[in-house]
Amino acid sequence: MAEIVENAETQAFVKDITRMSVDFDRWYTDVVRKAELADYTPVRGCMVIRPYGYALWEHIQRAFDDMIKATGHENWYFPLLIPEDLLVKEAEHVEGFTPEVAWVTEAGSHGRLDQRLAIRPTSETIIGTLIRRYIQSHRDLPQLTNQWCNVLRWEMRTRLFLRTAEFLWQEGHTFHATAEEARREVDLILDLYRRLAEEWLAMPVLPGLKSRAETFAGAVYTKSIEAMMLDGLALQAGTSHYFGQNFSRAYDIAFTNRENQREHCYSTSWGISTRLIGGLIMTHGDDTGLVLPPRVAPVQVVVVPIFRDGPARERVRAAIEGWRPEVEAAGVRLKVDWSEDRPGEKYNRWELKGVPLRIEVGPRDLEAGQVTIVDRLTRERRSLPMAGLGPRLRAELEDFQARLFRRALEFRDRHTYELATLAEVVDHFRRGTGFVWAPWCEDPACEIRVKEETGGVTIRNYDPDQPATGGCLVCGRPARRRVVLARSY
Amino acid sequence: MAEIVENAETQAFVKDITRMSVDFDRWYTDVVRKAELADYTPVRGCMVIRPYGYALWEHIQRAFDDMIKATGHENWYFPLLIPEDLLVKEAEHVEGFTPEVAWVTEAGSHGRLDQRLAIRPTSETIIGTLIRRYIQSHRDLPQLTNQWCNVLRWEMRTRLFLRTAEFLWQEGHTFHATAEEARREVDLILDLYRRLAEEWLAMPVLPGLKSRAETFAGAVYTKSIEAMMLDGLALQAGTSHYFGQNFSRAYDIAFTNRENQREHCYSTSWGISTRLIGGLIMTHGDDTGLVLPPRVAPVQVVVVPIFRDGPARERVRAAIEGWRPEVEAAGVRLKVDWSEDRPGEKYNRWELKGVPLRIEVGPRDLEAGQVTIVDRLTRERRSLPMAGLGPRLRAELEDFQARLFRRALEFRDRHTYELATLAEVVDHFRRGTGFVWAPWCEDPACEIRVKEETGGVTIRNYDPDQPATGGCLVCGRPARRRVVLARSY
Repeated sequence: MAEIVENAETQAFVKDITRMSVDFDRWYTDVVRKAELADYTPVRGCMVIRPYGYALWEHIQRAFDDMIKATGHENWYFPLLIPEDLLVKEAEHVEGFTPEVAWVTEAGSHGRLDQRLAIRPTSETIIGTLIRRYIQSHRDLPQLTNQWCNVLRWEMRTRLFLRTAEFLWQEGHTFHATAEEARREVDLILDLYRRLAEEWLAMPVLPGLKSRAETFAGAVYTKSIEAMMLDGLALQAGTSHYFGQNFSRAYDIAFTNRENQREHCYSTSWGISTRLIGGLIMTHGDDTGLVLPPRVAPVQVVVVPIFRDGPARERVRAAIEGWRPEVEAAGVRLKVDWSEDRPGEKYNRWELKGVPLRIEVGPRDLEAGQVTIVDRLTRERRSLPMAGLGPRLRAELEDFQARLFRRALEFRDRHTYELATLAEVVDHFRRGTGFVWAPWCEDPACEIRVKEETGGVTIRNYDPDQPATGGCLVCGRPARRRVVLARSY
Repeated sequence: MAEIVENAETQAFVKDITRMSVDFDRWYTDVVRKAELADYTPVRGCMVIRPYGYALWEHIQRAFDDMIKATGHENWYFPLLIPEDLLVKEAEHVEGFTPEVAWVTEAGSHGRLDQRLAIRPTSETIIGTLIRRYIQSHRDLPQLTNQWCNVLRWEMRTRLFLRTAEFLWQEGHTFHATAEEARREVDLILDLYRRLAEEWLAMPVLPGLKSRAETFAGAVYTKSIEAMMLDGLALQAGTSHYFGQNFSRAYDIAFTNRENQREHCYSTSWGISTRLIGGLIMTHGDDTGLVLPPRVAPVQVVVVPIFRDGPARERVRAAIEGWRPEVEAAGVRLKVDWSEDRPGEKYNRWELKGVPLRIEVGPRDLEAGQVTIVDRLTRERRSLPMAGLGPRLRAELEDFQARLFRRALEFRDRHTYELATLAEVVDHFRRGTGFVWAPWCEDPACEIRVKEETGGVTIRNYDPDQPATGGCLVCGRPARRRVVLARSY
């Protein structure tokens, strides 16, 4: 970490992007920094999110916030600090999180505090403590709470967006009168996460159930969406947890049911974070830099004016200002680059920043009543008539979004395998990465063995409704689950 | 504080709202809690913001975020934690804030940290430290940064929204090549704050310069907007600070100017917070509860269906569903209350929650092809034709917004006085509150004397361009400023 901070201080600008094939991790960090998404800071494990990165997060937030509001969820804001005695009521949960908690022990002129206060690593404990006030009877249920906030988990090894001590996220916490309703909530949210990933980030994901070993601390079960990065590693991109009555018992969150009896609530929690930005970089980027899905791109279309002299500049400017209102009215996020750099420099800058479409407008285009459009994905140059440019660009962007998703899906398919034995799996992950489907008997001992023999490959998740055939890849006993194995972030 | 927490725990629901005339402070807390805006928590000085309160904040955020984006500002996210050695570089600033700082000293399995980390009370120091990387030459200026985040200031006496240890705010921090440009930025933002307060919150404010004694720690000068609450006290509702080169020198934020010389930047900072919600409650509320300005009201129009039996219910429902799409398409935030409570209970609930307009729809309204509309401000009942209800309601809401502002302005005018001597001022504030305009010589000794003799009345601000006449209210020497005096929150 100290090393990285020093780099960040001394080397303010990344000169060139390391090629992906040379060193994927350096490629990633170079892209994040050179595209001005985020940077390391002198604060241990904390990043600064720069405007281009934050704008991505705002679009992701808006998209998901609309989805959860449309399904009846409400935004709250709960305290950042959690007194130690509240944090420790659910045994598994506290065991899972205490190694990562930062503690406030002193304050201003008051000096030492009577009790340590944790900076929230997640908010089950404080939300549970507070929500019980607002729940008396079954008529007060469900409570569908969410908050957008910062959380802090003291991490040893950090990576921009993917794993930082402080990160931004949403955390949903819901409380229900029946187990069935809470389970449906877990699935509803998992499907919203899938839609956010696939429809907005163009990132195909596998939704499924986690094994017991990979379950969230304190949960009955955890479901996740898993995406494949361009290095073949899995990224857990969102999780949705079912708690049963575990938290409600520990925090005494109870209601009077229809039979007039006191009963503990059934609860869930679920979260996605700024990690998603890391995911989209590693799903779509290339050696030139970022490639952004139009639906979340801060700039969807960049316009580079081409001219040799003042009069030509003026004609180009007039033409652009002519169609610009129509394009913006069509909902296209447009940026015209009037900086003094040469066109080639502008091309490089905006390709690095992953803008889906570039428009070049020069005197010859004006004569022909057209613009030249260049696609970040194919790099093809084509002409588009200036007339009706707004709807045309909208259609181009939608097509780009669809092609980006298909490309990612094809990449995942090409790097997905079906293997039957531990020997094959060990051999596979000695040579490469990717997703490997394999049969599993559901014995944790076999799961541990896979992890040990492969040096860290884990069961990412599985479809609980899909039958498995054949014998367990480790022990050969009848398989109960067809699971997906991968190395992961 | 312990007492309040106990109340919050034992008395989950406020039964009745204390009358404003009986006890304004209790009225305020009752309204905040009973209207379900926010609540105390077991975490010292921290509140929970409930969905109705958070929705208000979201509307305020959206309005102001649009304004600053339209004027070229960009959102960033900077670290929550600030290492002690970074915090202490600007002497006045650190002196102003250290009494209020909460410190992280331990983390997870790492135990005691080498250096204490402050939870940001404000972010000048960390933003200054980071922004210098991105500023090389005058071409990198201005940097117009903003962030929406939580901050923490350890306060002894807390009050929901008005003064809490943790609160939500935006903090803008800008860096300029010239003093003049930075000064213009301070004024630009002050005017956006005025517009937000007056046009969105219907809260008239006085923009002006603070006296030296009331200037932000580390600033050259501070400007503020000051609003009058219904108890005649002033609320500082937003501040905009000019730092000159103070912070840039302390944090070495420099650029190469057009003459190719290294020069320190000129910087500003400015913030508004969830305190604004407290301000709007105390500007518009009454003994029945909240009165919300339509432009930020989570629900602008509530519909109460009136029926005696199933068939009537169905007819009423069909009528409402008939015009509902048109009303929502007109941009009206509508809520239909189908709960099982009696109409009278619904009226009370939504009056308490300050919804500007209530619509009642019963069988008789249907026959007449109309709805009954009741105004939260005047409580008048009127009929509106069902035809064209969307545009009609929009017009009604705009009218409501304007009337609310006028009412608040008239209240302020009625409680604003012009006095000439300290004796008059002391006498005035012994009997009452309000804003008092008075002439001041600009000697801090006279300012202190006003504060001492009145038991806490302060100079809120003054218009630096307005000439003063007559002698200073304290010493009689020629006045240089016409200042506004008030007790304040």
